[in-house]
Amino acid sequence: MIGTPASGTPISYTPEEIAALKWNADGLLPAIVQEGATGQVLMFAWMNEEALRRTLEEGRSVFWSRSRQELWRKGDTSGDRQWVSEVAYDCDGDVVLLVVDQEGDGACHTGERSCFFRTFGSGAEPGPR
Amino acid sequence: MIGTPASGTPISYTPEEIAALKWNADGLLPAIVQEGATGQVLMFAWMNEEALRRTLEEGRSVFWSRSRQELWRKGDTSGDRQWVSEVAYDCDGDVVLLVVDQEGDGACHTGERSCFFRTFGSGAEPGPR
Repeated sequence: MIGTPASGTPISYTPEEIAALKWNADGLLPAIVQEGATGQVLMFAWMNEEALRRTLEEGRSVFWSRSRQELWRKGDTSGDRQWVSEVAYDCDGDVVLLVVDQEGDGACHTGERSCFFRTFGSGAEPGPR
Repeated sequence: MIGTPASGTPISYTPEEIAALKWNADGLLPAIVQEGATGQVLMFAWMNEEALRRTLEEGRSVFWSRSRQELWRKGDTSGDRQWVSEVAYDCDGDVVLLVVDQEGDGACHTGERSCFFRTFGSGAEPGPR
C-alpha cells in the first residue's frame, strides 16, 4: 500500500482514453520515462491501471513493482520525485510515455541520473564481428 | 527470415556486455527507440538476442515480432530505416535504448513520426477526478 503523496498538477483524461489501452496478460503496460527539459530517457518501469490513474490524478509517477507485487510512487523512499507534465500512449495503446520533471539526484537507484548510463562498446576493445 | 541489409556503421560489443543482459521468460528485452537529433522517443519494440546482435553488427535496428514470431528489420518494408548510432542498456540489464537517425516519414506505421502521438487529456474535457 502506498500513502498520500505531495500532489502535482493532475492530467485530465477520459474513460475512452483508458478503455483504448491494451494491457498485457498480467494487466500491465510498459512505461518509458523521459525528462522534459533535456529529452533524456531516464528509466523504464511497468504500470497497472491503478498506477496509471494515480499518475494522471496526482501528477506524480506511480508504477507497479512486478517483484514486490505492489504499487510504488517514485521518490517516496529516495526523495527523487518525478512531476509528470504529459503522458502519451502509442499507436497500439500498449505502451505509455511519461514526460517528467525529475527532482533530486536522478531516476536511477545507482545514483546515475538515467538508468541507461552504459552503452555497448564504450571504451571497450572492438567486439566480435 | 530476413535478408541482407544495406548496412550502417557497426557498434562494437563484448561477450561480457551481452552476458550481463537479463532476458525475460520469452527470451526478450524491451527496446526503446529515440531519435538522436531531436531526442524524440519514436517507438517501442522487443528484441531477442539475435535481433540485438544484428542491430549492433549492422548498425540498423532489428526487432523480434511477438505476433509473427520472426525477426523484422525496421524499414525493409516501409523504407523508413533506422541507422543506429548508440545502444545503451539499463542498470538492471533488462531494457535497451537505441539512439537512431530515422529515415523517411518516421517510425510509426500510421504515418506519424513517433508512435507516441496521442496524449491523455489533449483537447478533451476535464477527466474524472
